[in-house]
Amino acid sequence: MLEEWLAPKAAALESRGLTRRLRARAADERLIDLAGNDYLGLASDPRVVQAAVDAVHVWGTGSTASRLVTGTTALHEELESTLAAYTGQESALVFSSGYLANLGVVTALGGPGTVLVSDDHVHASLIDGGRLSRSRVEVVPHNEVGAVEKVLAERNEPHALILTESVFSVLSDEAPLAELAEVALAHNAVLVVDEAHGLGVTGGGRGSVAAAGLAGLDHVIVTMTLSKAMASQGGVVLGPSLLREHLINRARPFIYDTGLNPAACAAALAALAVLQAEPSRPGAIHAAAARLATACAVSPSAGAVVSVPMPGPREAVRAAELCLAAGVRVGSFRPPSVPDGISRLRLTANAGLTAAELDRACDVIPRAIQEVS
Amino acid sequence: MLEEWLAPKAAALESRGLTRRLRARAADERLIDLAGNDYLGLASDPRVVQAAVDAVHVWGTGSTASRLVTGTTALHEELESTLAAYTGQESALVFSSGYLANLGVVTALGGPGTVLVSDDHVHASLIDGGRLSRSRVEVVPHNEVGAVEKVLAERNEPHALILTESVFSVLSDEAPLAELAEVALAHNAVLVVDEAHGLGVTGGGRGSVAAAGLAGLDHVIVTMTLSKAMASQGGVVLGPSLLREHLINRARPFIYDTGLNPAACAAALAALAVLQAEPSRPGAIHAAAARLATACAVSPSAGAVVSVPMPGPREAVRAAELCLAAGVRVGSFRPPSVPDGISRLRLTANAGLTAAELDRACDVIPRAIQEVS
Ligand SMILES: Cc1ncc(COP(=O)(O)O)c(C=O)c1O
Ligand SMILES: Cc1ncc(COP(=O)(O)O)c(C=O)c1O
Repeated sequence: MLEEWLAPKAAALESRGLTRRLRARAADERLIDLAGNDYLGLASDPRVVQAAVDAVHVWGTGSTASRLVTGTTALHEELESTLAAYTGQESALVFSSGYLANLGVVTALGGPGTVLVSDDHVHASLIDGGRLSRSRVEVVPHNEVGAVEKVLAERNEPHALILTESVFSVLSDEAPLAELAEVALAHNAVLVVDEAHGLGVTGGGRGSVAAAGLAGLDHVIVTMTLSKAMASQGGVVLGPSLLREHLINRARPFIYDTGLNPAACAAALAALAVLQAEPSRPGAIHAAAARLATACAVSPSAGAVVSVPMPGPREAVRAAELCLAAGVRVGSFRPPSVPDGISRLRLTANAGLTAAELDRACDVIPRAIQEVS
Repeated sequence: MLEEWLAPKAAALESRGLTRRLRARAADERLIDLAGNDYLGLASDPRVVQAAVDAVHVWGTGSTASRLVTGTTALHEELESTLAAYTGQESALVFSSGYLANLGVVTALGGPGTVLVSDDHVHASLIDGGRLSRSRVEVVPHNEVGAVEKVLAERNEPHALILTESVFSVLSDEAPLAELAEVALAHNAVLVVDEAHGLGVTGGGRGSVAAAGLAGLDHVIVTMTLSKAMASQGGVVLGPSLLREHLINRARPFIYDTGLNPAACAAALAALAVLQAEPSRPGAIHAAAARLATACAVSPSAGAVVSVPMPGPREAVRAAELCLAAGVRVGSFRPPSVPDGISRLRLTANAGLTAAELDRACDVIPRAIQEVS
């Protein structure tokens, strides 16, 4: 059954050079890592590690149920209030992943009475949230505020959500948040900003929404993941307390999902504490990203990711392999993971890179690109 | 904006007695827990705790990226091969939650060419997977094989998936797996069985699919969560290797989600090792469940959960509060979390309960039910 169904699909992918395979990391490998999203360099920080270890001893290895049953610990609440205070929001609600946080907020506010105006570069989880919500979805060209406004003005639905990211995951460019918030207000709409790549990186760490002075507004909602700068796992939705209450009662990916495990809550809390104690870390990300961009002759990035266009998917994979052989791990993006169909190398700057590592990376990567192009 | 939109909804819920609120657990509370899903009683087992602690030291606090980038560690692969071997499957793929595992498999196999035949008691994550997949979805009455067969026989789509659970989450009854597998085979369909409540509980721990002799068949797929009997977090899809490869290439909730954190992988692996070393644990679950069912005068359960119908949502909440005041935590299920609209107490048996705890629970719970009815 599955054999006849799936074998031809696998062959078709293979013939186009698009088959993805998992490659496991070993614990003892010594590579310069420019592929992971540990932007602040905290996933092995002793303070963060110790916090996770302590939490496992105190709380056990799982949260044991939905957040609505036994899955909420005092740790979840501490994480929520700390994140809300740090980012200037009234409240926060933690999900088990950023993916489910995005599905949760979009489905809980979506539906036939809500139109979604979605930037055409948003993350898969926001797109899936839109599909799942049974809202009318209007995809607008990347960062075009005029197109957003047109949909809002011409709509028949009483409610509208604008879906965007603060720093986009593939191109690492920024959304025009202040203008979008203004348009939202003028048209009685809500702006939903995914700060997966903003938290810990932009606005001195507090994210782009806070930096733009939009935190705490009644028509701006923020989502985040704890799996990148926070060196952990999990997702968050931040906004007015009434939104939090609504999600607790209406967001199926919250209600019917097991709460985030205690180790992950504690690690994220500890990472946030390190970030607050060492506010120079976001600056180190930007400095490293700027060097990588210069070395690869691409324009500077708004976030941690430096995105280098490649001639095609095979070249992207080949260049990444050459880098790996030289001790530098970089990511490659191929269709369908790129909004514009252009395959890319994805270089992630992080605050933990040493000067020597950065020197080496800036030597190895441009040579690999050259060699395959 | 959000205030005007959401406040009336909150008030409407409140007036019907259906508002859900989070209540955080404290670390030092001493309650008899019959609400969590730690069926094997392993979430604070020293061996499981130590494995999680070791993993945090070795691997860090997060997996740092998508499984396709740096998010696959040797630990993920070990977990996958161990789970596959234990349950008699060719391969396994770990997701960051059971919710995303279900979304992943249903969307990766669904679409216009696939009809989904879904039991009307399946979990929210399978329902959402169906909606997201853009398949035609036919919901059939609970456990009615004839209704499944009719949809399969009359369909125009080349492909079909039957969606069910081995042990259902609310009623804790079993699906007729052997008959469903037979019907699937006869009609060139694939049976997808969610063993969230079967793993560690039925079939001596290996689940109901293995117990029915259906593990490893080319037309049977299994999904699981690591958040219940495995005392951890995460989800799994098990089946032929070709399915695993297909999911790696097509399941958006796998591709665009950060890999499960190392602590959770290690905890699940350790829980599985304890289960294999102490094969009497599933029997202890069933014995405890049988005692609870007798005490509450309901029919015996196929799994760990004993489900006690209540007159209404307020009575369910009130009875749970009385139990809590007497030192016993039980769950309550209210609409929309019940497939038939009937509010219930949900009692979870677990292998870690002592005889004294069970005695106390069997005294407290029936009295609380009596008091509110
Ligand atoms: C923009 C964006 N949103 C959401 C997510 C999903 O977050 P998570 O990995 O925590 O599910 C990601 C990446 O994983 C992302 O890049
Ligand atoms: C039947 C069933 N499937 C899937 C899930 C989702 O698993 P997870 O909590 O790991 O997301 C649950 C419960 O949480 C469940 O009861």
